[in-house]
Amino acid sequence: MSTATTRATISVPDRLLLGSGPSPVPRRILEALAQPTIGHLDPAFGALMDDVAAGLRATFRTKNAVAIPVSGTGSAGMEAMVANLVRPGDRVICGVHGLFGERMADELTRHGAEVVRVEAEWGRAIPTERLLEAAAEPFAAMFVVHGETSTGVAQPLDGLADACRDKDALLLVDCVTSLAGHPLDLDASGVDAAFSGTQKCLNAPPGLAPLTVGERALGRVKDGRVPSWYFDLSLVLGYWLKEDGAPRAYHHTAPINLVYALAEALAIVAEEGLEARWNRHAVAHDALRDALAVLGLERLAPEGEQLHPLLAVRLLDGVEDAKVRGPLLTEDGIEISGGLGPLAGRTWRIGVMGEGARLEPQERLVRALGARLGGDVDGAVGALKAGWAAA
Amino acid sequence: MSTATTRATISVPDRLLLGSGPSPVPRRILEALAQPTIGHLDPAFGALMDDVAAGLRATFRTKNAVAIPVSGTGSAGMEAMVANLVRPGDRVICGVHGLFGERMADELTRHGAEVVRVEAEWGRAIPTERLLEAAAEPFAAMFVVHGETSTGVAQPLDGLADACRDKDALLLVDCVTSLAGHPLDLDASGVDAAFSGTQKCLNAPPGLAPLTVGERALGRVKDGRVPSWYFDLSLVLGYWLKEDGAPRAYHHTAPINLVYALAEALAIVAEEGLEARWNRHAVAHDALRDALAVLGLERLAPEGEQLHPLLAVRLLDGVEDAKVRGPLLTEDGIEISGGLGPLAGRTWRIGVMGEGARLEPQERLVRALGARLGGDVDGAVGALKAGWAAA
Repeated sequence: MSTATTRATISVPDRLLLGSGPSPVPRRILEALAQPTIGHLDPAFGALMDDVAAGLRATFRTKNAVAIPVSGTGSAGMEAMVANLVRPGDRVICGVHGLFGERMADELTRHGAEVVRVEAEWGRAIPTERLLEAAAEPFAAMFVVHGETSTGVAQPLDGLADACRDKDALLLVDCVTSLAGHPLDLDASGVDAAFSGTQKCLNAPPGLAPLTVGERALGRVKDGRVPSWYFDLSLVLGYWLKEDGAPRAYHHTAPINLVYALAEALAIVAEEGLEARWNRHAVAHDALRDALAVLGLERLAPEGEQLHPLLAVRLLDGVEDAKVRGPLLTEDGIEISGGLGPLAGRTWRIGVMGEGARLEPQERLVRALGARLGGDVDGAVGALKAGWAAA
Repeated sequence: MSTATTRATISVPDRLLLGSGPSPVPRRILEALAQPTIGHLDPAFGALMDDVAAGLRATFRTKNAVAIPVSGTGSAGMEAMVANLVRPGDRVICGVHGLFGERMADELTRHGAEVVRVEAEWGRAIPTERLLEAAAEPFAAMFVVHGETSTGVAQPLDGLADACRDKDALLLVDCVTSLAGHPLDLDASGVDAAFSGTQKCLNAPPGLAPLTVGERALGRVKDGRVPSWYFDLSLVLGYWLKEDGAPRAYHHTAPINLVYALAEALAIVAEEGLEARWNRHAVAHDALRDALAVLGLERLAPEGEQLHPLLAVRLLDGVEDAKVRGPLLTEDGIEISGGLGPLAGRTWRIGVMGEGARLEPQERLVRALGARLGGDVDGAVGALKAGWAAA
């Protein structure tokens, strides 16, 4: 084949990805990604699909039969969840304390739901009692963002499932940034459906949205006609939900190579152990928080509300976002993310995700950022190392 | 990083992909795919996005500003097109002469359209006059499948655009299997919007849906509220439709590595030249048709209606699909596809796509398939080579 032996013409710069995602993709996952494409109905691919489903169940901590990668980025998981589980006229309680709660409120509105917003300041968790108050009236579903990527806040799930079950409502969760990086046990928390992304704590390339749906929620899929052909679980599951070699019904062509990468990412999580991985993210978060505090950068989230995989800090007075973050990327080769919405220009969002949650990349960031801010680099690096050493 | 130097644990079998897609992905594209992931807002990625948009315009043969890869497989392109351009109550003429016309009719119904089906037998093109008859009444859009992957039929587009413009209606086209493999000039044909896939004649991995939308159609996007957040072009274009370094607004995280692969695939198309590529697919199709005829396998599509990238042939009497196609895959390592819908068990669908449209892979298929059918292998290979030599 004439083009088979030619080298690729595109090239990309070397970057250390310590922003809000994508996160650093290890060479091992890129190597899996680049395995030869095979057919979506090939039995060898079917076996890999079973592995991926099992790996997702373990990582979500669920016994749900349905644990699949939706063929799109994280927000496709959101859309798949809503298109299948929310019907026009449903009263849906939607926690909003950042961009991703806002996004869900928009999505719910587009699907005809009556949206009951329960808000908190960006940078804070929503008090559970406020969500429970909204649940006093009948409702069809409650949605919360477990890991708010726009603010670095983790939303407690305790007590929500009981309130939902009291009203025969579903508990729906966005765990895009928390999955495999922050403690989360979907079954123990009584979550009925949750979606995530591959480009955060799983360290796989973006393009798939892990989704799990429990039995109570699945009943709703069959109830009505799903307004989306692409995301219709009654069709998608005919392809994904066959195990032990049963024939799979073609729906759409799966993103084969991305599934390879996800399989490899899940294998890495299993090798480390999920709890060890959560612990490492907590250590990495605290160490980096201490180091950045030496540079004067204070965390947005108060203690106890922080999301380990995403550390949002307030900019120093007088520091202009783009003048630091731009050259940090283009000259130092380190990506961090700016603020979103009301926090634009006022915060930086630093990823502590998977391979980014290690001492070496964090030290590189602290040195580069510290130098650009004219701060106490040695003190900051010392705090970072002390945080890791104490673990 | 502890996992950075470990080898990938997943492995996949060696397959020659000569089915309905995915098609053979050249090493060069896999190498592009495996370039390190960078951020979706990195200026270096933005430059690549501009290259991809330009390459898609050239390959679609359009001057449309909007030429983007939707973040999902081919059917996501279908859904993006309908969610943005079709409104509830719209009268939409839908050509149905195979599975992908059926799929679109389903999609249109889910979006509340009044669907006017214009049908033809699976394996035939729809007579243009039948489509024009349906266009005598007012309608909002006409949809046809240019390359029917389920039957190997190419649908002529001549005369459709005028009929659409007469009624201020849009002409919408599925060119998943025809793009870059079968003659298609969207602007000359007056097409208002079209979608494709990356895993057919572009030879990239599945997971992106090239989509182009012209100015007339774009007006409709702004008219109403799009029922899908993920596919809403008014949001997606804030990210994709910025050129010359203008800041891009975050919508969802693009499938970075798949965009690398698409960029490389489009570069390969440009190197060969689009018309030369079309011609090569025509030669490959005819040569393989002649070779398979020696084995007794007759093409489903009559001469003049064939889709070059997909050759559907009727099974010989008494031959059981799975007993040939199964071992062809698992023992010979060659994938071809079975029939769909009413053609299940009665046809094979053989891809003639990109790197699959060359003598070497075709000879390997003809030898293996001929041997399994007990046919005149030497005669078939002779016909194949004669077809290529005559070109």
